[in-house]
Amino acid sequence: MQQYTVTFSPDNVRATVPAGTSILEAASRAGIALKSTCGGQGTCKRCIVQVKDGQVTCERDPLPETLRGEGYTLACQTKVWGHVTVEIPPEARLAKHRVLLQDEAPASEAGAAEELLGGRPFQPLCEAVNLQLDPPTLTENASDWHRLRGALRRHRPEEYSTIGLPSLRELAESLRRADWQVKVVLAQLKGASEVIRVAPADSGGVYGLAVDLGTTTVAAALVDLAAGEVLGQAGTYNRQARFGDDIISRVIHATGEEGGLEELREAALASINEVAAELVEKCGIAPEEVVVATLAGNTTMSHLFLGLTPKYIRLQPYIPTTAEYPIVRAWEAGLNIHPAAPVLVFPSVASYVGGDIVSGTLFTRLSESDELVLFVDIGTNGEMVLGNREWLMACACSAGPAFEGGGITCGMRAMQGAIERVEVDPATSEVRVKVIGNTKPVGICGSGLIDALAKLRRAGILDRMGNFVPERAGRRLRRGEDGYEFVLAWKEESGTGKDITLTEGDVKNLIRSKGAVFAGIQSLLKTLELQLEAIDKIIIAGGFGNYLNIPNAIEIGLLPDLPPEKYQFAGNTSLKGAIQVLLCRQAWEEALEIGRKMSYLELSAGNLFMEEFVSALFLPHTNLELFPSLAGEREGGSNHWPGA
Amino acid sequence: MQQYTVTFSPDNVRATVPAGTSILEAASRAGIALKSTCGGQGTCKRCIVQVKDGQVTCERDPLPETLRGEGYTLACQTKVWGHVTVEIPPEARLAKHRVLLQDEAPASEAGAAEELLGGRPFQPLCEAVNLQLDPPTLTENASDWHRLRGALRRHRPEEYSTIGLPSLRELAESLRRADWQVKVVLAQLKGASEVIRVAPADSGGVYGLAVDLGTTTVAAALVDLAAGEVLGQAGTYNRQARFGDDIISRVIHATGEEGGLEELREAALASINEVAAELVEKCGIAPEEVVVATLAGNTTMSHLFLGLTPKYIRLQPYIPTTAEYPIVRAWEAGLNIHPAAPVLVFPSVASYVGGDIVSGTLFTRLSESDELVLFVDIGTNGEMVLGNREWLMACACSAGPAFEGGGITCGMRAMQGAIERVEVDPATSEVRVKVIGNTKPVGICGSGLIDALAKLRRAGILDRMGNFVPERAGRRLRRGEDGYEFVLAWKEESGTGKDITLTEGDVKNLIRSKGAVFAGIQSLLKTLELQLEAIDKIIIAGGFGNYLNIPNAIEIGLLPDLPPEKYQFAGNTSLKGAIQVLLCRQAWEEALEIGRKMSYLELSAGNLFMEEFVSALFLPHTNLELFPSLAGEREGGSNHWPGA
Repeated sequence: MQQYTVTFSPDNVRATVPAGTSILEAASRAGIALKSTCGGQGTCKRCIVQVKDGQVTCERDPLPETLRGEGYTLACQTKVWGHVTVEIPPEARLAKHRVLLQDEAPASEAGAAEELLGGRPFQPLCEAVNLQLDPPTLTENASDWHRLRGALRRHRPEEYSTIGLPSLRELAESLRRADWQVKVVLAQLKGASEVIRVAPADSGGVYGLAVDLGTTTVAAALVDLAAGEVLGQAGTYNRQARFGDDIISRVIHATGEEGGLEELREAALASINEVAAELVEKCGIAPEEVVVATLAGNTTMSHLFLGLTPKYIRLQPYIPTTAEYPIVRAWEAGLNIHPAAPVLVFPSVASYVGGDIVSGTLFTRLSESDELVLFVDIGTNGEMVLGNREWLMACACSAGPAFEGGGITCGMRAMQGAIERVEVDPATSEVRVKVIGNTKPVGICGSGLIDALAKLRRAGILDRMGNFVPERAGRRLRRGEDGYEFVLAWKEESGTGKDITLTEGDVKNLIRSKGAVFAGIQSLLKTLELQLEAIDKIIIAGGFGNYLNIPNAIEIGLLPDLPPEKYQFAGNTSLKGAIQVLLCRQAWEEALEIGRKMSYLELSAGNLFMEEFVSALFLPHTNLELFPSLAGEREGGSNHWPGA
Repeated sequence: MQQYTVTFSPDNVRATVPAGTSILEAASRAGIALKSTCGGQGTCKRCIVQVKDGQVTCERDPLPETLRGEGYTLACQTKVWGHVTVEIPPEARLAKHRVLLQDEAPASEAGAAEELLGGRPFQPLCEAVNLQLDPPTLTENASDWHRLRGALRRHRPEEYSTIGLPSLRELAESLRRADWQVKVVLAQLKGASEVIRVAPADSGGVYGLAVDLGTTTVAAALVDLAAGEVLGQAGTYNRQARFGDDIISRVIHATGEEGGLEELREAALASINEVAAELVEKCGIAPEEVVVATLAGNTTMSHLFLGLTPKYIRLQPYIPTTAEYPIVRAWEAGLNIHPAAPVLVFPSVASYVGGDIVSGTLFTRLSESDELVLFVDIGTNGEMVLGNREWLMACACSAGPAFEGGGITCGMRAMQGAIERVEVDPATSEVRVKVIGNTKPVGICGSGLIDALAKLRRAGILDRMGNFVPERAGRRLRRGEDGYEFVLAWKEESGTGKDITLTEGDVKNLIRSKGAVFAGIQSLLKTLELQLEAIDKIIIAGGFGNYLNIPNAIEIGLLPDLPPEKYQFAGNTSLKGAIQVLLCRQAWEEALEIGRKMSYLELSAGNLFMEEFVSALFLPHTNLELFPSLAGEREGGSNHWPGA
C-alpha cells in the first residue's frame, strides 16, 4: 500500500503511514500525544490540528466554516492521501504532565526504601545466592537443572526449588558461560523458590519494577531489591487514551470492536514498557536484571492488562471476571523485563474497587489501625475505604472526569499551562491565577477548579445552588451560548488566543462530581451507622489528592468538615504499595488478605446513595449542620487577596 | 520478491515460492516429503528429482553427466528462477509409511482402553463436573471466578481449585453462554484441580491426546477420558527430517544455525498438530475438547519440542538441560488443542535414555516385576533397560541408521516398496523377496536386511566375518565399484529400473549395528555381574521391533540366544505409556518415579562396551558359547525354501 510521510510542526517529527491513516494515528506513531476524550469518534473536538500542506479528506467535520477555511480539522476524522504537513496547536497537545509518583517533589527520586516498608521486615520478593557447582563428567552426568537444584537444596535445605520454561531455555548456556560459578536469582512465591535467572557469580543486580497502572497515567518505580532502595521513578500517559479518556469508552472499545481488547492490552503494555525502558536506561541496568514486577490498577485496568474482558464490569450487576489474578510471567504479559519474571497483579475487591485501592490500603496500614480511618482516592471515580483492624468497607462512585478537566469547557489535566490556583478579589471580582510551569494559561485543572468554585462562592459570585450572581460578578461575567460564563483569563493573557472561561454548565458538572464523592462517604457512614465525627483520620490519596487545598475542598462540600489535622496526604499509595510488596513478600500475603477481607458497598443498590447525592448538590450541602466550620462565615466575606 | 510456481508431477500439485527457493523447500511447501538424510547438504544424494521444464540453477551437482543430461538434479541444491515443472521419481519420495501405532494392525484402531491400563485404576487426568451456579446480582456480586470456585468447593470440599490465564480469559463469556449451568473440565495436577474449560452443561466431551514424538515418525492417539476409550490413532513423519535424518544432524542444525532451534521446534510441532488435526476431524470433535496431552520422546526430541537447547546432549559429557520437564500449557507449546490444556512431557533419564523409554518402562510394568526383565527398543539408537521392582538400569548405544535403511546402498524405511522378507535357496543361491504393499521392490528395510543377513549366512554365501563367499554365491554376486555386491532383485523386477543390491559395505554396516545392540546388552549384564540366563523376559519395543523375526535376529547375533517364549513384542510402548497416563494420573507419578529411580550406564565411559562391541562384530559373535542354539548347525544347512 502507498506510504506517505506526515510531518508535524512545531516538533518537526515525522511518521510514515499507509494511505488513509488518520492524522490522530499518525501523530501517535510519531510519538505525539494528542488530546482525545471520545476515542476518535469525532465528538469531543479536542484533537483539532491545522493541515498546512498536502492531500487529506475529512469524513465528518463539525468545525465552523471559518476554522475549516484555515485548514483546521479534527485529527481523528482526517485521513492522509499524500505527504502532509500538520501544525499542532498547544491546546490539542497532551503536554508533559506532572504524573504523580511516590512523592510530589520529583527531585527526591532516589532514596532508601525504609519509609516505604513502614515497619515491615525487609524480605524482598527476589534474592540472589552465589553457588559453585561441580562441572559434569561422564560419570557425574546429572542434567543441568538437577545439578543446580541439588546445589540449591544443599544451600537452603528447607526450600523446594522450581524453574519455568523461559529460564530453563537459558540454563545450559548460563551455567557454562559462568563456568559453573553462578549467581542464582530466586523468587519466593507460594512457599517455593523459583529460579528466575542464572548469571555469572557476582555479576548484575536484583531489581524489581513497581507499576501503578492508572486510567490516565502510568507511574513506575525501579527498586534495587538487594539494597532495598528505590533507584528511580518515571511516568507517562496511558496510551489507551486514544481509545477514549474514560473507563467506559475503553470498555466499549474492548468489547465492541473486533480486536479491541487486544488493542487496549497492547496500549497499556506499551505505556508500561516505555517507562520501564526509561528507568533501566536511566539507572544503567539491563532489562533482564529486572526479575519481578508488581502492578496495581483499578479492576478494569488489571483486566485489560491481562487480556480479561471488562464487558461485565460495565453491565449491571457489574461483575469482574476475577478479583484475584493468576501470577503471570513477564513473557506472557509482554513486559520487557526478564521473561521469567513473575508479575503480581494486586487483587481487586469489586468491579469499581480495584488493586490500586487494595495497594493503598496495604500501604497506609489501614487494616492494622486501632483508629477509624477513611481512605479517599479521588480521580474519575471516587473510591473510599472506611475501617480499622477489625473490618474494612469500600465503595466507589462515579465522580466524573471534571476534576481531571474532562467535561469542563476549558478543563485540562494538571500539566503545563493549566491554571492550578485561582484568587478572586471579593471587592472588585477581579481574578488572579497561578499556572503550572508559569506559562500563559491554556486551561484549568482540578485543583484550579476547586479553588475557583470556593473563591467564587466566597466572593458571592456563585450562590449555594451554583448559579452565577450577575450583580456580584462584575465585567468578567457574560452571557455565552449556553448561559452565563465567567472569564478566568482574557484571550490577551492566554496561551490559546481565546478567553478561558468557567460556564454555568461547568459549575453544575463540578457540583455533581463533588456531590458524588461526599455522598459516597456519607453512604459508607450511614450503612455502618456511624457519624462523621467517628472518623479519626482521613487519608487522601491519588493523582488528584496531592494538589488539593483541603479548606477549599471542604468549603465546596467535597470533603467532610473535619479539623485539618485529621487530614493526611499519602501521595500515590497505589505505587507505594506496589513498591512495598517488592521489598516485603509478607506484604503480598497481606494484600491478598485485604482483598478478601474488604466488604463492598454497591451504591447502585438501594436509594441511600441517590438521596445523599441529591442532598450534596449544593455549595457546600443542603444540610449545613454537616459543615459547622462554615456556619459563622459571612457570604462573600473574609477572602485573602494576595498582595492586596 | 518475484514469485514462481513449481509444479510437481505425477502428483500435479503446486507451490508458489520466491525466486531462489530450493526445490526441496518448494516440495515441502507443496506437501510432498522427499528423502533427505543429510539435511539439505547435498551429500546424501537421496533427493534426486527430474526438472522437466523451467529455469533452475544448481550450485553443487555431484550426479553423473548422463543423469544431469536428462534433467536429474538434487532437489536440495537446485534453486528455481522461473516457473518450473519437476518430476519426482518414486525412490526419492517418502511414501506413506507404516507408522508404528499402538498395535501392528491399523484395523483395530478403536477399542476399550482396559488393556492399556494394565490393571491400574481408571483415574483420568481430566474429568468433567456439571454445576449449576446462581447468577450474580447487585448484592451477590462476587467475581465470576470466585463464584465458580465456590461452587467447586461445595461440590468437592477436599480439593483446591485454580485457573490459568487462557481459561480465565474465556470464563466470563463461557458462564453466560451456558446461562450459569456449566460443565467444568478439571485437570488433576499436583494435588490441585485446575479449571481447563467451562462449557454449557452436558455439552462436549473430555478428550486427551497421547503423542509419541519419534525422531523419524510421530504417532498419536486420541483418548476419550470419560469413556476410557482410544478413539483413534494416526501417524506421520517428523517434519524435522528436512534438517537431517538423524539426531546428530538435527542437534547440529539446532545449535549451529541462527534460528535453527526454533525451526526444529516448529517442525516437531507442525507434525504433532497435523496428526492432532487428523484425529479430531476423524473423530468429529472440536480441538478445544482436547483438554490434556501427554508426550513421550527421546531426550533430544523432548528438548526440541520445548525449545530447550540440545547442544550439550551431543557434546561430551552429554548433559541434557533437564531430565524432568515443566508442565507447559498447549498455548505455550503451540499445540492446537485447548489452549489451557496441560502438556505432560515424560521425564528423561539421561541424554540418550529419554521419555520414550520411561514411558515404555511404565507401560510394561518392568518396575513392578518380580522377574528380571530386559526391555529393548531398537531404532537408530538402541536403548535397553534391565531390572525389576528393586532396581532399573539403562543404557543406550548408537546402532546407526542401518536398521532403518540409512547408510545402506538400497536401504529404505519400512514402507511401500520395501523388501521386508528375504528367502535364499541354499542349493541354487536363488532369492525370493516379499515386498510391503506387494509392489515391485524399490529398496530394502530393516527386517528385510536382518532376513537377508541370516539367510545368506545360513546358505554359506556370507562367512562369519561378513565376507561374501564367491564360490557359494552364484550368479547374483558380482564385483561393484566398492567390492562385492549381491543382487536381491534384478532391475527387470524392481520399481526403480535398477538392480537392488546388498554390498559388502552394507553387510559391515549391519554387523556394526547389530554388534552395538548386543554389546549394550552385554555391558548391562556384566556391570551387574549377571549372566544372559538370568533374564526371565525380553520385551522388544519400538518402530522396528514389530517386524522383527526373532530367530533370524538371534542368528545374526543381534539379540541374545534365549528361548523364543521369553521374547515378547510390546509394540509402540512409548505411545502406550502416554495413553496410560491420560487414563490414570497415578501412572504419571510412577513415570516421574521411574525417571528418578532408573540408573544410567554411560557406555562411553571405560572400555567395557568397546570390548564387547569388538567381540560382537561377527556373525553371530566371536564367542559362540553365547549362542548355544546355533552350535549344532551345519553351515549352509537346513534352510526352509518356501514352495520348494
